[in-house]
Amino acid sequence: MDHHFALHSRLEADTAFIADWALSRVLLMNDARYPWVILVPRRAGLSELHDLSHAERLVLTEEIARASGKLKALTGCAKINVGALGNMVPQLHVHVIARNPGDAAWPGPVWGNGTAEPYAPQSLTNACETFRVSL
Amino acid sequence: MDHHFALHSRLEADTAFIADWALSRVLLMNDARYPWVILVPRRAGLSELHDLSHAERLVLTEEIARASGKLKALTGCAKINVGALGNMVPQLHVHVIARNPGDAAWPGPVWGNGTAEPYAPQSLTNACETFRVSL
Repeated sequence: MDHHFALHSRLEADTAFIADWALSRVLLMNDARYPWVILVPRRAGLSELHDLSHAERLVLTEEIARASGKLKALTGCAKINVGALGNMVPQLHVHVIARNPGDAAWPGPVWGNGTAEPYAPQSLTNACETFRVSL
Repeated sequence: MDHHFALHSRLEADTAFIADWALSRVLLMNDARYPWVILVPRRAGLSELHDLSHAERLVLTEEIARASGKLKALTGCAKINVGALGNMVPQLHVHVIARNPGDAAWPGPVWGNGTAEPYAPQSLTNACETFRVSL
């Protein structure tokens, strides 16, 4: 535990809580256009993957692989996109997104493409529960 | 060694060879707009990060961290972007890109933004040599 960890306000505003794994807070992006999960290592002051300790990076890697494999199994998507960008939100966070031909941004990246379509409140709750059980 | 590994034709066309690391072929994207490296695990038939074995994924993670940290030190960039998308090229490959405010796509992602600006031949050779030594 890192008691100095606090989720960036932009991530707080744009996502809903799914679960805390060993290292990462697992969030659902509130954008119904794509099944879209974000992993945020619960350590203060991280910006780049190379800022993590070796041991923590190995944990994060397995958490990314878990989210990736489970999201693919859950959605039957054509491709998983994984990205750690941070050009706008400097706190280290990793996107894991289910992509399909014909989705709103295919075959381009989802970031910066169009406008998020928030879930209806009950749908957001349901989606978080589905992801909590399935990932 | 995986004797069935062959670089995807699109990656072959768009990049230049920097080095072979323990797992990954390290390539320079032939786009002078950004210092842009691509890691391709030399294993046939991989598409997703979760397709790698646990052991190979740990190696890839350290190779990503190495490329990320060295590229940041070499370029002094503001942010590293790391991405494994594969919507157009299914062969597993990981982008590691040096980003700065004011670059051609900032703060958006580089993928699908504008048109690549190839290096002049001698500049490409020089850049590959610099990256070979520095990464």
